Amino acid sequence: MKKMITIAVDAMGGDNSPKKIIDGIELHHKKSENIFYKIFGDINIINPIIKKKNIDKQFIEIIHTETKIEGEDSAFAAAKRGKSTSMWLAIESVKNNKSDIIISAGNTGALLVIAKLNLNMIQNIDKPALSGLWPSKKGMSVVLDLGANIECGDKNLIDFAIMGSSLFKSLFPEEKAKVALLNIGSEARKGNEVIKNTYQKLNQIDNEEFEFRGFIEGNHLMDGDSNVIIADGFTGNVALKTAEGTANFITSELKKTMKSSIFGILGSLISTRSLRKFKEKLDPRLYNGAILLGLDAPVIKSHGGTDYIGFANSLSVCERIVKNNLIDKIKNSIN
Amino acid sequence: MKKMITIAVDAMGGDNSPKKIIDGIELHHKKSENIFYKIFGDINIINPIIKKKNIDKQFIEIIHTETKIEGEDSAFAAAKRGKSTSMWLAIESVKNNKSDIIISAGNTGALLVIAKLNLNMIQNIDKPALSGLWPSKKGMSVVLDLGANIECGDKNLIDFAIMGSSLFKSLFPEEKAKVALLNIGSEARKGNEVIKNTYQKLNQIDNEEFEFRGFIEGNHLMDGDSNVIIADGFTGNVALKTAEGTANFITSELKKTMKSSIFGILGSLISTRSLRKFKEKLDPRLYNGAILLGLDAPVIKSHGGTDYIGFANSLSVCERIVKNNLIDKIKNSIN
Repeated sequence: MKKMITIAVDAMGGDNSPKKIIDGIELHHKKSENIFYKIFGDINIINPIIKKKNIDKQFIEIIHTETKIEGEDSAFAAAKRGKSTSMWLAIESVKNNKSDIIISAGNTGALLVIAKLNLNMIQNIDKPALSGLWPSKKGMSVVLDLGANIECGDKNLIDFAIMGSSLFKSLFPEEKAKVALLNIGSEARKGNEVIKNTYQKLNQIDNEEFEFRGFIEGNHLMDGDSNVIIADGFTGNVALKTAEGTANFITSELKKTMKSSIFGILGSLISTRSLRKFKEKLDPRLYNGAILLGLDAPVIKSHGGTDYIGFANSLSVCERIVKNNLIDKIKNSIN
Repeated sequence: MKKMITIAVDAMGGDNSPKKIIDGIELHHKKSENIFYKIFGDINIINPIIKKKNIDKQFIEIIHTETKIEGEDSAFAAAKRGKSTSMWLAIESVKNNKSDIIISAGNTGALLVIAKLNLNMIQNIDKPALSGLWPSKKGMSVVLDLGANIECGDKNLIDFAIMGSSLFKSLFPEEKAKVALLNIGSEARKGNEVIKNTYQKLNQIDNEEFEFRGFIEGNHLMDGDSNVIIADGFTGNVALKTAEGTANFITSELKKTMKSSIFGILGSLISTRSLRKFKEKLDPRLYNGAILLGLDAPVIKSHGGTDYIGFANSLSVCERIVKNNLIDKIKNSIN
């Protein structure tokens, strides 16, 4: 028998929770084997929902929590409110080795702080980083840091390269990790001192974990020639959100023009099938879930605004991360 | 009679020059009045092209130059090669008040350095910035800095806000300038120290030149609620190029899916008309041209890879900037 994977799920965070969380668990449960869901949240709300679901009871446990972190809580307020919340208890479950991984769609700042309060850093890593998934012409890339660290030194960026590569290989075991540093030019003399030093050092590291491909500019992020993109948290966050905004802008403009003439409407009716394929490939729910790297247990943040399909996709990310031993991979590479 | 505007044109920079430059001048000349083009470049190449054109001779002058800046020249090499090149002489023409504005599609680094060597800074401005045009749901925005200054203090960012607002009002005299600072969150406590200080100071500035709207995140850049977006050169460059890359990625994925099924092909044939409108609105040639702000004369950089239509659009930008007295606007606002 295969080993059972236990996912600690904070059921109370994000829009339409806990309903979407339970719906997501049901969807993921259908497609997966040997996953046990430890669900943290208000049993009085969760029970009526879960009763209507087609989830085998032997794969779930509900741990009742009275309180929850609110979306508007500052990280400090959240930490104070802390110990009786669904988020805190879910993280504690990983800390106490009762679960293999924790996922929450709640307040990002609170999740970072409570995770850091409860979990130890992996030895030799100074700062944890938030990484995300990004579509490319050749598949999917990993990008980090998305905002956990506004300022980073070269040591941090090198850690990110190592952790990002381990993550990439956990998610896509068949592929090779190819690291690039996000910069404003591709020549070695471009960029600030930190980034130039990181470039020199990454060039000298001899390793089998990843191939270092040098600098990458924003307009090549989606080419797919590099699949692990490294930046400080400020730059990474701006890049991610700008890409998101651009994608939304273009698709909304496209819809507007499509609807503005009878030819457009006819055309788009006939195109619906191929447009659907297009939408499916770029569906943000496919890329849902940021992964906090650097702590000695995996912590996954689902987008608060995603729906149950997006949440189920994040549960698949959890599954792959545990199956492929992400934390061990990072520990081995960092030394 | 209206005052004649003189544009100094470096004819030798960018792909397919000087042909595309001359083609662009012809196109712009057709639509404009009272514009005189001082064309700097190799007369032996330019003359045969210009002879076939429908350009009234009283509106052009060719100033022969033996040499030109190469695309691969480092800024230092370019400055050394300097004084006999088409770029240098075009800038010198503005310096000596023989022209009102200078435009080049050549090497950006060289243009920055040669412009700084020849022209004075506007009093009270510490660093020049490169600004660009960006499409939004409500029209067009101005974004700066796009890469002239990797590191900026709060004084620089405030200067950028003032210069960017003046530029916006020169380009769109009917509209109000609304300034926002690019950041990784919209709350006042977000971001690094420089950006938080800038926020506080911009909030206290009482002025009629622009409205300060606070922080903006990358995913709202294109909403159009703010139309002057401020960032340091590193962040601005990453945002611009990431938006460019995302737009290219999405349109190429769209084409791929459209072509991958017979329904898609049929649909896209019928949709061609509305897709063309869509493409026209987002045509990068509309947004061609970065504007160097902070020197006491206007310097325009056309994209090296654009065609004659894009170059003609940049000539229109030149025209509006001179007509609406950009430099005087900046001088008045900065004091």
